[in-house]
Amino acid sequence: MKRYERFADEIAEMIRSGVLAPGEKVPSVRHASRTYGVSPSTVFQAYYLLEDRGLIQARARSGYFVREHVRSALAEPDQAAVLVDSTEVSVSELVFSVLASLKNPDTVPFGSAFPSPELFPLPRLARSMGQALRSLSPHAVIADMTSGNPALRRQIALRYSVSGVRLGAEELVITNGAMEALNLCLQCVTEPGDLVAIEAPAFYACLQVLERLKLKAVEIPVHPRDGMDLGVLSHSLERLPIKACWLMSNLQNPLGASLSPANKHALYALLKHHQVPLIEDDVYAELYCGARAPNPVKSLDDDGLVMHCGSFSKSLAPGYRVGWVAGGRYAEQISRLKLMTTISPSVPAQAAIADYLQHGGYDRHLRKLRHSLEMQQGAMLASAARHFPPGTKVSQPAGGYFLWCEFPERVNALQLFRMALEQGISIAPGPIFSATRRFANCVRLNYGSPWTQASEDAMAVLGHLLASF
Amino acid sequence: MKRYERFADEIAEMIRSGVLAPGEKVPSVRHASRTYGVSPSTVFQAYYLLEDRGLIQARARSGYFVREHVRSALAEPDQAAVLVDSTEVSVSELVFSVLASLKNPDTVPFGSAFPSPELFPLPRLARSMGQALRSLSPHAVIADMTSGNPALRRQIALRYSVSGVRLGAEELVITNGAMEALNLCLQCVTEPGDLVAIEAPAFYACLQVLERLKLKAVEIPVHPRDGMDLGVLSHSLERLPIKACWLMSNLQNPLGASLSPANKHALYALLKHHQVPLIEDDVYAELYCGARAPNPVKSLDDDGLVMHCGSFSKSLAPGYRVGWVAGGRYAEQISRLKLMTTISPSVPAQAAIADYLQHGGYDRHLRKLRHSLEMQQGAMLASAARHFPPGTKVSQPAGGYFLWCEFPERVNALQLFRMALEQGISIAPGPIFSATRRFANCVRLNYGSPWTQASEDAMAVLGHLLASF
Repeated sequence: MKRYERFADEIAEMIRSGVLAPGEKVPSVRHASRTYGVSPSTVFQAYYLLEDRGLIQARARSGYFVREHVRSALAEPDQAAVLVDSTEVSVSELVFSVLASLKNPDTVPFGSAFPSPELFPLPRLARSMGQALRSLSPHAVIADMTSGNPALRRQIALRYSVSGVRLGAEELVITNGAMEALNLCLQCVTEPGDLVAIEAPAFYACLQVLERLKLKAVEIPVHPRDGMDLGVLSHSLERLPIKACWLMSNLQNPLGASLSPANKHALYALLKHHQVPLIEDDVYAELYCGARAPNPVKSLDDDGLVMHCGSFSKSLAPGYRVGWVAGGRYAEQISRLKLMTTISPSVPAQAAIADYLQHGGYDRHLRKLRHSLEMQQGAMLASAARHFPPGTKVSQPAGGYFLWCEFPERVNALQLFRMALEQGISIAPGPIFSATRRFANCVRLNYGSPWTQASEDAMAVLGHLLASF
Repeated sequence: MKRYERFADEIAEMIRSGVLAPGEKVPSVRHASRTYGVSPSTVFQAYYLLEDRGLIQARARSGYFVREHVRSALAEPDQAAVLVDSTEVSVSELVFSVLASLKNPDTVPFGSAFPSPELFPLPRLARSMGQALRSLSPHAVIADMTSGNPALRRQIALRYSVSGVRLGAEELVITNGAMEALNLCLQCVTEPGDLVAIEAPAFYACLQVLERLKLKAVEIPVHPRDGMDLGVLSHSLERLPIKACWLMSNLQNPLGASLSPANKHALYALLKHHQVPLIEDDVYAELYCGARAPNPVKSLDDDGLVMHCGSFSKSLAPGYRVGWVAGGRYAEQISRLKLMTTISPSVPAQAAIADYLQHGGYDRHLRKLRHSLEMQQGAMLASAARHFPPGTKVSQPAGGYFLWCEFPERVNALQLFRMALEQGISIAPGPIFSATRRFANCVRLNYGSPWTQASEDAMAVLGHLLASF
């Protein structure tokens, strides 16, 4: 263990034990350096690490503070057990039966996959749409279908370059949301019957796509804080003819886990060694807690092996259906697949987002959004501690808008799902996140809506239902 | 031959021989009935048939007139020869190399797949977008992704019901243009390796989709005026394990052919007998010449066997990427496939089109659009007669915006394509419309742009190039 890691652990212990209280300012670098006899750069590194772990957060020009809701009364869930070999996927029926239940707008949307649309600047975006349509030439309406809106491409490339990723102009393919991007990427590097390494638990849409494309899943366990278990992945890559790896490197859905910078390096080296392409689903990238955006694995890619998929659906413009992939060496083929399946995402939607990115104040909106989500996480964590039975474990992600709850073994999440739905509460039961229908006592809860008395009441109802098991 | 068909042929002969001149009024029903000693209903049926054949057109409250450009100086092309058995498809490379050449906005766009965007009410549509975004609730932005904008669904269902098609509320799936609809329909009823009956010549995107899904093509010849050869189709259905039939029943791309009402009945009976689902690509439905929209095969479907695909891309809103499929018994499965691939077309684009359909004057726009296209067809036909070499055959479709030219055998369309491109003229060479790369001496020309001196000059250049063969 390095010196800064040891020091970080000391501070973490002070936070956990309450010596440093939630909201309290962490000692300044100079002060800490003198007090604890370590170099300022060690303190810096330790604070970066603590920030990555979600324990402290930077505030502009005021230093670091302990996160408000850092001390959840509940423990964090454990990493899933290791499975052997690959699995055919057959979960779509289950997933659709769960998703169908989410349509009712009157339910408390703890099962939703989206943050509340109230958190997005929809009126400002509508103005951008008006502006964009006024200046869009009739010719562009046709031409932008093939290669995407040029201004949007520039804006996305610019945001990459700010976060340290240099893209070739041709590497970006604008898609119908990240979902299409992920589909195209997988089709690009696999044939039916192939093996794909995915996460356990995994975003259920990933499982559905594998099922649709007749691919087999190799489930790699994900640690609730540290992300995919690279030891298991390495072992699987040695043993099995895996054709692609699909994962969320940052704020993984449903766990909220992120790979540390070191693990991102290790992951990339591993995949490069095996020449296995990475489909990096990074749609929650902008929803981090703290001062700095996490870097994608794509930032390490010197071999064109990473297809990095992003979207505006979770951060700016739900329903506009605009996403993209930075496709590395596969970009041309992805673009062709897109032209053969949907041709193009909506040209006006692209133009509206391009205008907003240039003039709308995206970064200001994102800061506000992140703050809202962090506050809502705190509220839900506190509420979970009040209402959920002893032995419940809850994740405490450093961003996003999902909590992953692991209840005592006696709880059946699918049964809880049905009971909750009868009470007007939707939840996402664990088994839809697994090709092997594990996580029978787990649920994913969405805290992407402003916290209200109805939310609190719903948590109490869930608590009652849980007590009945 | 029925009495009205014989009478129609007599009138057609009078038109062809010049006894009835272009633009001239056809005898009124009463007058014709007395003069030729046939019943008024026979005259009516004959005129309907002639209208379907594109020879005469109705003008509101003034009776029927010979179409202005009905007497092309060039003969019509012949039906393609019959091929045996099925073919693996591998044309994508060729198609993409041709499509790439269309990107240059400075070329004369005879090779384009779209009508000129200048023909569309884009500013009015932009106002509808503004109106729609003002009244769209944040909740709807999320909710409309699953099932589509409810107002748009109602408007589409309404248009179906006007044309005699009754749809169940659940049968409509809103898609990212017709291209996604066609992809989903094919995926829904086939597995890799399956045989699909398609047209020869066929829209090249159809070939690309078959190639992508690893399906085999059974090419059924299409008559330039009457549409798919049902005799050949019937024979193929008897002999081969065909899993689906994909065709354009109205204004087929590239030939412009339409199935007559009688042939639509025959086609449906044939497919129903074999229980082979029909994927009916009807994206040009609104671009007919004459007074009445042709009915789709879907209007005959009492068994849920027809997946009818439509789009606003060719008639109202290019680039918005909004289409749909009335999916019959497959609707639920199509909807699920859509949720697993792109989730949804752009919600604002759907809302804008819904508002336009309610308030924008769609039918008025369509009448204007049809009139422009018909005039442009006449101009291109006349120009072809002036510039193209003797022996050239040109289709004379009853709508749409494509001419299909069959040049003398010595002409190599791919070579012509390259030579024309050097002169700043794009054309669509015949071989991209065939899984077996036939139609080596054919091209498709787009007359979807207002006719200008540049168009006329380009035709003259093509004439010169053709003379060099």
